[in-house]
Amino acid sequence: MGGNQQIQVVVLGAGFGGLTFCQSFRHPNARITVVDRTNHHLFQPLLYQVAACGLAAPDIAQPIRAILSHRPDITVLFHQVMDFDLARKRVILEKGAMDYDYLVVALGGQTGYFGHPEWEQFAPGLKTLDDALRIRSQILLAFERAENETDPAEHARLMTIVIVGGGPTGVELAGSFAELTRTVLNHDFRHIDPTQARIILIEGSPTVLSHLPPDLSASAQRQLEALGVQVRNNLHVKTIRDGEVELANGEVIRAGNILWAAGVSATPLTKKLGAELDKAGRVKVNPDLSLPAHPEVFAIGDLALVLGENGKPVPGVSPAAMQMGKHVAKVILDEINPGTKPTPRPAFKYWDKGTMATIGRSAAVAWVGRFKFSGLLAWLAWLFIHLIFLVGFRNRTSVLFQWMYSYFSYKRSARIITYLPPGAKKPS
Amino acid sequence: MGGNQQIQVVVLGAGFGGLTFCQSFRHPNARITVVDRTNHHLFQPLLYQVAACGLAAPDIAQPIRAILSHRPDITVLFHQVMDFDLARKRVILEKGAMDYDYLVVALGGQTGYFGHPEWEQFAPGLKTLDDALRIRSQILLAFERAENETDPAEHARLMTIVIVGGGPTGVELAGSFAELTRTVLNHDFRHIDPTQARIILIEGSPTVLSHLPPDLSASAQRQLEALGVQVRNNLHVKTIRDGEVELANGEVIRAGNILWAAGVSATPLTKKLGAELDKAGRVKVNPDLSLPAHPEVFAIGDLALVLGENGKPVPGVSPAAMQMGKHVAKVILDEINPGTKPTPRPAFKYWDKGTMATIGRSAAVAWVGRFKFSGLLAWLAWLFIHLIFLVGFRNRTSVLFQWMYSYFSYKRSARIITYLPPGAKKPS
Repeated sequence: MGGNQQIQVVVLGAGFGGLTFCQSFRHPNARITVVDRTNHHLFQPLLYQVAACGLAAPDIAQPIRAILSHRPDITVLFHQVMDFDLARKRVILEKGAMDYDYLVVALGGQTGYFGHPEWEQFAPGLKTLDDALRIRSQILLAFERAENETDPAEHARLMTIVIVGGGPTGVELAGSFAELTRTVLNHDFRHIDPTQARIILIEGSPTVLSHLPPDLSASAQRQLEALGVQVRNNLHVKTIRDGEVELANGEVIRAGNILWAAGVSATPLTKKLGAELDKAGRVKVNPDLSLPAHPEVFAIGDLALVLGENGKPVPGVSPAAMQMGKHVAKVILDEINPGTKPTPRPAFKYWDKGTMATIGRSAAVAWVGRFKFSGLLAWLAWLFIHLIFLVGFRNRTSVLFQWMYSYFSYKRSARIITYLPPGAKKPS
Repeated sequence: MGGNQQIQVVVLGAGFGGLTFCQSFRHPNARITVVDRTNHHLFQPLLYQVAACGLAAPDIAQPIRAILSHRPDITVLFHQVMDFDLARKRVILEKGAMDYDYLVVALGGQTGYFGHPEWEQFAPGLKTLDDALRIRSQILLAFERAENETDPAEHARLMTIVIVGGGPTGVELAGSFAELTRTVLNHDFRHIDPTQARIILIEGSPTVLSHLPPDLSASAQRQLEALGVQVRNNLHVKTIRDGEVELANGEVIRAGNILWAAGVSATPLTKKLGAELDKAGRVKVNPDLSLPAHPEVFAIGDLALVLGENGKPVPGVSPAAMQMGKHVAKVILDEINPGTKPTPRPAFKYWDKGTMATIGRSAAVAWVGRFKFSGLLAWLAWLFIHLIFLVGFRNRTSVLFQWMYSYFSYKRSARIITYLPPGAKKPS
C-alpha cells in the first residue's frame, strides 16, 4: 500500500463511531465508503423524545450524505450488510460486495430480549426512528381507545404503560411519559383523566440507573416518583404476552402499552466476524480495537468489547464510540503515513467524561468526575451538552426552540398519529 | 329544542371547515362532538413541503384535542364515519352511532383518479400526512437506488419525477422538487448528478394554474422553467403503469416516481347523504349550505357544491371552507337563540380573498382583488399569509425558522427515509 495506489477504507455504520472515524480520517491516497442501512445519522440520546411526542423525527436525524457532502473522498451507500469474507478482505452487501484494505465495523446494537425474541411483538424496544414513531403512535392510540371506552377497568388497562428496564432509556421514557400524561394531555380528554395513567418502571436490580453511585440512583428514583412514576425494583419479568407482563413473583400486570428498555445486544452480524463474542454479542477486540486475527479489521462502538482502565468494559455510550472512531483513524493514518508507524499500535484509552440521565422537566442526575448533581442543575447540564453534540445547526436550534416552547407552555407539539409500520401492534 | 334540553351538534371532520365551525359556535345549551379519522388538524396548504423534505410532519399538524382543549363543551372522537341515518338523525361510526340535532358534514375530499382508481398504486396523490411521508421516502429512495446503479439509462429513469396536474399542488410539488434536486441534493452523491433530474409537469389544459389570469399563469410557467421544470401543457394521460405514464398522443415517459395532482373528489361518503351530487361527488346544497331535504344537516368545505356570486362554484380552498363553517355556525345560533331566527335563512356569500401559489424560493404568483404579483413579492405575501393562518404558536415559529434556515443555507432538514406505509410502492 502507499504510493499512488488507492487505499480503500470501508466503514460499516454511520452512528457516532463510524461518523467520528470519517471526520478524523482523511488521507490523499485513501478513499472511504460508508455503508448504512438507513439514510440518516440518528442522535440516539434524544430518541426517547420522539417517542414521547416532544420532538419531530427530523429534529434528531440528519442525512448522512448531507453531513459528509463536503468530503469528495467519501462515498455513502444506503445498503444492508449481509456478511463478511475476511480472508478475501470483502464485505458482502444485500446487492453486490465491496473490497477493502481497512474495515471499520461500527454497526451498533439492537434491542435484546434475553433469548426471548417473541416478546418483541408485545414490548417494542427503542433503537431506531421507526421504533420511536411506532411507540408514539401506539401510546396516543391507547389513550384514544380509552376515551371511547365506557368500562373503567378498560380505562385503567389502556392507560397503563409498563417500561421494563431501569437503565437510562427506561428512566427517560418513564419520566417523559409521566410528564406527557400529567402536564400535556391532562385537559384534552372528556371521558378519561390522563393524570390517572399508571407509568410503571420495572427494574431487576435493587436500584434504577445502577451504573451510578447509590445516592444518585436514589435521587433519580425520588425524582421519578415525584413525577408520578411507580418504580418497582428487584423484580424480574417471567414472560410477556399480548397486553400483559407476568413477573417472576407471579404477579400479572395488564397494560395497554409495554415498552422494553432492558437489554441491548450487538448486531447479530458480529457472529459472522469469526471472533470471540461475549453473551451480548460484543466482539472481544485487541487493545488497539482490531480483531485478533485481522489487524486490518476494527470493531468500534456498542458492538466492541474493550476493557477500560478500571478493568470494566467500556460502556456502550456515544462518547465511547466517538473516542474509538478517533483512535482507529489515528492507528490507520499512522500506518499508511511512511515513517510514523508505531510498534506495537497504541492501545485505546477510554476517557470517561461523566454520565447523565434526564428524568423530566428540570429533573436529571449527572456524575462528572468527582462531582454529582441532581435536579435543575443536572438538567441544564444535560440540555447544554446534548445541544452541543447535536449534529447540524438546524437540528440544534430547532431542538432548543422546541424545548423552550415545551418548557414554558407545557405543551408538546409532535402528538400526531401517523401510519403504523408493518408488524406494529395496535393497542390491545 | 331550547330551554334546558341539550342540543347535540355533531361535526364530521376537523379540517378548516369543521374547526372554524367549532370556533364560531358556542351556546350554553349546546354540546358539540367532533369526529375525525385522524388525531390531528392538518395545514394542507403546506403538505407539499413535507413531501419535498422542507418541513417535518409535526410542523403542519396539531392535535385536534389540543386545539379544542379549552372548550369543555366540545368532545373529540377519533373515529371513522361509515354511514348516515338522516331520517333518525343519526351518524353511523365504525363502532357505534351518534344522535344529533344538527349535523355539519365537513369531511373534505380525497385524490380523484377520473374513474381509474388502479392508477393510485403507481401515482400516489397528496392529501394526508401519510401520503406526504410516503412520497418523501419514495423520492429519496429513488435517488439512493440511482446512486447504486451503473447503467446511465437507469439513472435517468430513476431521477425522473412526473407530476400529473398543473393546478396549485402540481405546481408547488414541481417547483419544490426542482429546487430539492438542484440546490439541496446537488453535492450529496458521487455517481449521479441530481441537478440532471428531470421534473416533468403534465397539464391537460393550455396553461398551468388555469384558474388564474393568463399573464399570471404564463409567469408561473416561466418561473417553473427557470427552476428547471419541464412544463408540458395540452397533454392528457392515457394510462399509468408501474413506472410509466402513457400519454394520449402515444408517448411513454418512464419515471422512477409519478405523482398525481390532477384531481380531487369529495369523500365517497357524500353518496350516502341521499342528495344530488356533481361528478366530483360534491353535494348540491341550498344557498344556506343545508341539504335540500334536511334543514338540520349542513355540508361545508371541499365536499359542498355552492355557487358564488359569479355563478361559478366556490373553489375548494381553505378560506372558502372557513367562511362556510362560520356561516353555518351563525345559522344554527340564530335558530336556537329565541327571537333571532330569520326567515328565510341567509344565503352563504363567498368572499374571495385572492389566490396565490408558490413555485419555489422567492418564486410565486398572487392575485388579490385587482392586484397581481409575481416573483419575490408574491412569495413574501404567500409566506406571510401562510404563517398567520398556521394554527398554534409552536408550528408557526418552527416553520418560520425552518424556512429562514432553508432560505439562507440551501439545505433541507427533513430528508430522512422512515418506514414506508403498507401498500407503498418501492421505486420501480
